[in-house]
Amino acid sequence: MRRVLASNDALAAEQKRQLDRYGVLGINVMSGPGAGKTTLIEKTVAAFKDRWRIWVIEGDIQGDLDARRVLKQGVGCTQINTQGACHLDGLMLTPVFAAIDFANLDLLLIENVGNLVCPAEFRLPVHFNVTLVSTPEGSDKPVKYPLMFQKSDVIIINKIDLLPYVDFDINGFIRSVRRLKPKVLIFPLSLRNGKGLEAWLAWLKKVLRDRQRQLKRR
Amino acid sequence: MRRVLASNDALAAEQKRQLDRYGVLGINVMSGPGAGKTTLIEKTVAAFKDRWRIWVIEGDIQGDLDARRVLKQGVGCTQINTQGACHLDGLMLTPVFAAIDFANLDLLLIENVGNLVCPAEFRLPVHFNVTLVSTPEGSDKPVKYPLMFQKSDVIIINKIDLLPYVDFDINGFIRSVRRLKPKVLIFPLSLRNGKGLEAWLAWLKKVLRDRQRQLKRR
Repeated sequence: MRRVLASNDALAAEQKRQLDRYGVLGINVMSGPGAGKTTLIEKTVAAFKDRWRIWVIEGDIQGDLDARRVLKQGVGCTQINTQGACHLDGLMLTPVFAAIDFANLDLLLIENVGNLVCPAEFRLPVHFNVTLVSTPEGSDKPVKYPLMFQKSDVIIINKIDLLPYVDFDINGFIRSVRRLKPKVLIFPLSLRNGKGLEAWLAWLKKVLRDRQRQLKRR
Repeated sequence: MRRVLASNDALAAEQKRQLDRYGVLGINVMSGPGAGKTTLIEKTVAAFKDRWRIWVIEGDIQGDLDARRVLKQGVGCTQINTQGACHLDGLMLTPVFAAIDFANLDLLLIENVGNLVCPAEFRLPVHFNVTLVSTPEGSDKPVKYPLMFQKSDVIIINKIDLLPYVDFDINGFIRSVRRLKPKVLIFPLSLRNGKGLEAWLAWLKKVLRDRQRQLKRR
């Protein structure tokens, strides 16, 4: 298992260099089932597609439900079916990466398979790992799936519109996330009513702009 | 991988014979993170502990949060930490089974690791596989994680108290579950306010009574 992970790490590093060669920003979106990964991607694509060139990779055990949702936004999308595997990895991305025209791309959004376990172990060729947790799941997730939170650069607390109806201790959640990863960015928001979404979009916009400035300097 | 699964199947069959020797009913509870597995077990234990002798096995990547919750109910509980593995399996259960006094037990509740992928592949020594889905997760889960639903004998739709606030097509969900497994039992309920819980408890009570009647006949 350690050898599998090490060879995946090496492949991810090589694939990430491919993104960097063309100044493409890579984002890996992870969460348990139904926390809102596809909706986050839909809303992000809708907000950014006029300004930036976006490609989406959808990871699912089987089916193309999510890819169909993304394609409706009018951006390119590749569906990967893992045939039972609980995560995406470098080998699955290899044929997809060979087909993507990175020279004409600014942002690559990868939606991982929906679970809080395996995707944490398999590094993907991205600059930021984003994990969504939704308030109905309960605030104990960082204690139960610590690796996922340690590996994340950004935590999105989705479905804050449901806070009045569920038991979610948002301060306790933030404390236990910061205990695992002190400098992680945390965005509480509701993808349903849009509250808080602008902070996520503003952060991503800044990251994209900073990268393009660096590119021009090269 | 096929060999690993086959040897796990054989081990599960052997361990299940151990349950049957003592007339113990085994239930495997599965779901994504935060759908309500531990709460279902808490409420079931609370309703049944005066009438039946119950043991609970809690599967988690790490930590003992759930075992602590169950122990408060005053029944025996063993915590298994999978150290990263995304499911329980027969090998993990072997030392636990060696320690449980099955002769003084009626019901064994096993809480699997929280995800909708790997637990579907690794058979456990139980009579019923129960999968929880909660309404905020969305009604597309059977299409995205079909194996989990095919392997389930009982589906619990939890958090129906949130139906007014989320997009969950309950009829569409039931239709797509039945397409995968026509005769599956489906219990819509709210573990938060208790609505619908009595149907689940009544079913489980009937199964336990039927088993005890069969045992007396032997």
